[in-house]
Amino acid sequence: MAKRDLLSMADLSRSDVELLLDTAESFLPVLHREIKKVPTLRGRTIINLFYESSTRTLASFELAGKRLSADVMNIKASGSSVDKGESLKDTTLTLSAYSPDIIVIRHPQIGAGGLVSKYTPASVINAGDGKHQHPSQCLLDLFTMRQALGRDLSGRCVAIVGDILHSRVARSDIQGFLLMGMDVVLVAPPTLLPRDVEALGARVSYDISDIGQADVVYLLRMQMERQAEGANFIPSLREYATLYGVSPGRLRNGQKVMHPGPINRGVEISAAVADDPDTLIEQQVESGLAVRMAILYRTIVGIDERDDDGEET
Amino acid sequence: MAKRDLLSMADLSRSDVELLLDTAESFLPVLHREIKKVPTLRGRTIINLFYESSTRTLASFELAGKRLSADVMNIKASGSSVDKGESLKDTTLTLSAYSPDIIVIRHPQIGAGGLVSKYTPASVINAGDGKHQHPSQCLLDLFTMRQALGRDLSGRCVAIVGDILHSRVARSDIQGFLLMGMDVVLVAPPTLLPRDVEALGARVSYDISDIGQADVVYLLRMQMERQAEGANFIPSLREYATLYGVSPGRLRNGQKVMHPGPINRGVEISAAVADDPDTLIEQQVESGLAVRMAILYRTIVGIDERDDDGEET
Amino acid sequence: MAKRDLLSMADLSRSDVELLLDTAESFLPVLHREIKKVPTLRGRTIINLFYESSTRTLASFELAGKRLSADVMNIKASGSSVDKGESLKDTTLTLSAYSPDIIVIRHPQIGAGGLVSKYTPASVINAGDGKHQHPSQCLLDLFTMRQALGRDLSGRCVAIVGDILHSRVARSDIQGFLLMGMDVVLVAPPTLLPRDVEALGARVSYDISDIGQADVVYLLRMQMERQAEGANFIPSLREYATLYGVSPGRLRNGQKVMHPGPINRGVEISAAVADDPDTLIEQQVESGLAVRMAILYRTIVGIDERDDDGEET
Repeated sequence: MAKRDLLSMADLSRSDVELLLDTAESFLPVLHREIKKVPTLRGRTIINLFYESSTRTLASFELAGKRLSADVMNIKASGSSVDKGESLKDTTLTLSAYSPDIIVIRHPQIGAGGLVSKYTPASVINAGDGKHQHPSQCLLDLFTMRQALGRDLSGRCVAIVGDILHSRVARSDIQGFLLMGMDVVLVAPPTLLPRDVEALGARVSYDISDIGQADVVYLLRMQMERQAEGANFIPSLREYATLYGVSPGRLRNGQKVMHPGPINRGVEISAAVADDPDTLIEQQVESGLAVRMAILYRTIVGIDERDDDGEET
Repeated sequence: MAKRDLLSMADLSRSDVELLLDTAESFLPVLHREIKKVPTLRGRTIINLFYESSTRTLASFELAGKRLSADVMNIKASGSSVDKGESLKDTTLTLSAYSPDIIVIRHPQIGAGGLVSKYTPASVINAGDGKHQHPSQCLLDLFTMRQALGRDLSGRCVAIVGDILHSRVARSDIQGFLLMGMDVVLVAPPTLLPRDVEALGARVSYDISDIGQADVVYLLRMQMERQAEGANFIPSLREYATLYGVSPGRLRNGQKVMHPGPINRGVEISAAVADDPDTLIEQQVESGLAVRMAILYRTIVGIDERDDDGEET
Repeated sequence: MAKRDLLSMADLSRSDVELLLDTAESFLPVLHREIKKVPTLRGRTIINLFYESSTRTLASFELAGKRLSADVMNIKASGSSVDKGESLKDTTLTLSAYSPDIIVIRHPQIGAGGLVSKYTPASVINAGDGKHQHPSQCLLDLFTMRQALGRDLSGRCVAIVGDILHSRVARSDIQGFLLMGMDVVLVAPPTLLPRDVEALGARVSYDISDIGQADVVYLLRMQMERQAEGANFIPSLREYATLYGVSPGRLRNGQKVMHPGPINRGVEISAAVADDPDTLIEQQVESGLAVRMAILYRTIVGIDERDDDGEET
């Protein structure tokens, strides 16, 4: 039996996604109980191996593991000269000797998850590799939309706004949203779009008013660090905020707004939008917990236990 | 039902304090058993959100949560550019989406706990905010004194010695000690007292020999970092040690000495005093664990379960 | 009843070692089950106090504790100005007030474990003190050899190659290997041997071809940080690799290779050797987990429960 990894949204079929989202939905009530945990993964070991610091993704995976009663060990490599320059291959071999069930890896290099998977019998979950993929983010975004808009997302329109060029969230989301039959439009200045943007399969617009057609406006974080480093993909943050920042006047009544966080108030999102009840940002965080519980669970338990045909679920 | 926070000693009545101290006392035997934990908070989630590094307070809250069988997640924001400059409000909204039962917050800004509380349905415990408050420290100090001097502290005298000006411990302690009917005298050079020191409600003395009247001499940590930074509140550490440092010759036989730690041997406290059996510093640490268990427990379970009138307990 | 510490291999008799290795062997199957934990140390508290960063040793002790169901608290002092310069004595007194069952300490100063032990009623395990001792490493090395070569190691030959001078691993290993009746030869350039190398009780050789006689070739990590700092114990890494690095041509068929990790591919060990199935490096990591579970268990439970005479086991 092959082990189960989650390295890219490309690993998943539409019915795989639906099974994961259904599983997440079944975990949602656990999060609102007094005893917020289930014994499902008791005695299993999950290692979170993070080469980039990420308070929120790490916290989400850590809590997801704990709420499934797994033993969770965080290894933060960023900054702290992990193991004196040991290669990722050797770190993987070392960690594998602890017989973990799952290794969750975040790494600045594209493809790091695949490399780890090659050298470990554990299942590997990619929690972000360079500008490449961040599949659990896409799944939690889909889950959030399903909760807000209804189970069938096909035909729904989502506008992804902002720095597509540097965003692994955008790459995973575009892939996953299209897989579920959604209509995806990318809205950004030309300098923040990749050269081969058409290859991503989504429509492209340079005009923020094109978000009007969307059921969901998905804002990307403006990575201000880059701007500070002098890599001037935009003339200034102020100009970006004016041209592409989303304030209430740019939204239809009831139009949903999403953002992977952390948000920059006053840059890609105005404070009024951030605090609006139609904004789903907090729901995304909660979804993240349920979805990551589902990913960890299905990675270990498998998908064999579904008793439906995987089409309608 | 309003949620329960512990932001300041001003939140508590005398009978609230007594209930918390009684609860702490009931937890004390747990700390000396072989199996040092109780299942009370199993499945509950506690987030320790620390914007200042603090090995001992964090360790104390972490262990207190674990010994109550809660799931504990530490988020250390200090240094590591938490969430890329996300505001405390947005961090709170994010963490709240995990449905924690309690957020324990330490933050350099006065009032940070109140701000967190405004944006979360979780109970909030202030583990230190700027120069303002540190209520769990006051409660553990009261508990330590009660164990050493007997249950009724009213009429007992405590001298607080040292850097009152910068100390949140002093602010919480003065408030709590007075609440319990104690006689409080502050002993410090004028430069280490706040301008409105009379407003604190305690007597003031510049003369170290005034500690002679006290049942307990409570020494504050000389924050040597400040001195090193050139903020010369005292002429020199050596002179401070000579004028206000406590050595055996300055103490009556059997007089108790307390200190919130970490201590500076040879500055505010001589090595001989630090190692003396009448010094209660280690008892304070143990008290901290029992008191924080009580705070976490009462925050979640509430105070409704007391079966007395709250006056004699 | 005296408490049990593990500060140095010199603390252990041959039958103590055999009991620990037998205990480790009994834990080995736990690591390969689905539920990889036992309730043995439930409710016990283990504090890992690390003054040097060490991803792998810390992870190993943390997981060992968790798989025994203990509550584990990691305190990393390195870098983060632990407790504002508090002395090791005062940190020990503070931590002891939490009534931990075991303190595992790693510290750059020789003898730190003994100092901690002096001030705490907890059992103390030395996880590395300066250039002095690292007894759990020696025990896991012995365990690995026993698994690979058979239970009786007496008369077997091991060659330890590399930087003996700076290595606490070497110091512990030499002591432990000799204790078990093994034949030990040290192979290194004169500049990487201590002055009093004969006092260690092993044979010495400057010639790498002398590894040919060994059942096990034990390679030490070349600490490249030292070389970078200009402390030129060797002319160059390239020359060291040529003269003392181990590549397949230098090994007999079936000869076992060990290394405490992390390895420097192309320096003390060639990539081909690192990846060879006769190399026991990953087994050492797994052994580390089983052996540390055994150490934690025996430290708390004691050695009284053995039902044999301790000679044949």
